[in-house]
Amino acid sequence: MSADPLRSGDLFADAPSRLEKEETAVLADLPGARIERIVSTGQASPDGFWYDQDLTEWIVVLSGSAGLRIEGEAAARILGPGAWLEIPPHVRHRVDWTDADEPTVWLAIHGR
Amino acid sequence: MSADPLRSGDLFADAPSRLEKEETAVLADLPGARIERIVSTGQASPDGFWYDQDLTEWIVVLSGSAGLRIEGEAAARILGPGAWLEIPPHVRHRVDWTDADEPTVWLAIHGR
Repeated sequence: MSADPLRSGDLFADAPSRLEKEETAVLADLPGARIERIVSTGQASPDGFWYDQDLTEWIVVLSGSAGLRIEGEAAARILGPGAWLEIPPHVRHRVDWTDADEPTVWLAIHGR
Repeated sequence: MSADPLRSGDLFADAPSRLEKEETAVLADLPGARIERIVSTGQASPDGFWYDQDLTEWIVVLSGSAGLRIEGEAAARILGPGAWLEIPPHVRHRVDWTDADEPTVWLAIHGR
């Protein structure tokens, strides 16, 4: 963020290297979609927890890596920089792990 | 794209290194937003051309670099990896240049 008359920023700026919790920042809140940057530093979803969302979520990992588990799949999907995934409503999923050595920067778009 | 039951892909896969024209791929077409990957290899907007859009466009450069000119600003904004910008409806803009040496990969989200 800045004194820029337009909203602008840098996805990789101020990505903390060690966090107690994941950090989520809303970058844009459009009529049709919310765009978030999420930074993880080794966090995972709590044991037994599944996200179950009413809206489509489109995610991409931009740095670091993560293991994303889709309910019913045998193993976590390993996502590295550039890997994107569209998660339809009510497809249950969880984060099994995120990179312990470097920040994992995600971009998440929640459709309306 | 793949035989994956979910839609998935890699933003950096198959980014052509030399293109006659910019390449735009729709990655997701959600009710509230359209998500596109754009690859530029040195292209610029035609002389005198300005984009003038009815919808908010949120863009981020993920590799390469570009000079994005906003109407009324003295100079192009230089965008490198991670730089994002929210362009409100009818804020006229053009691409003055894109990196001639490596592909510029953009993610563009068009809100509805």
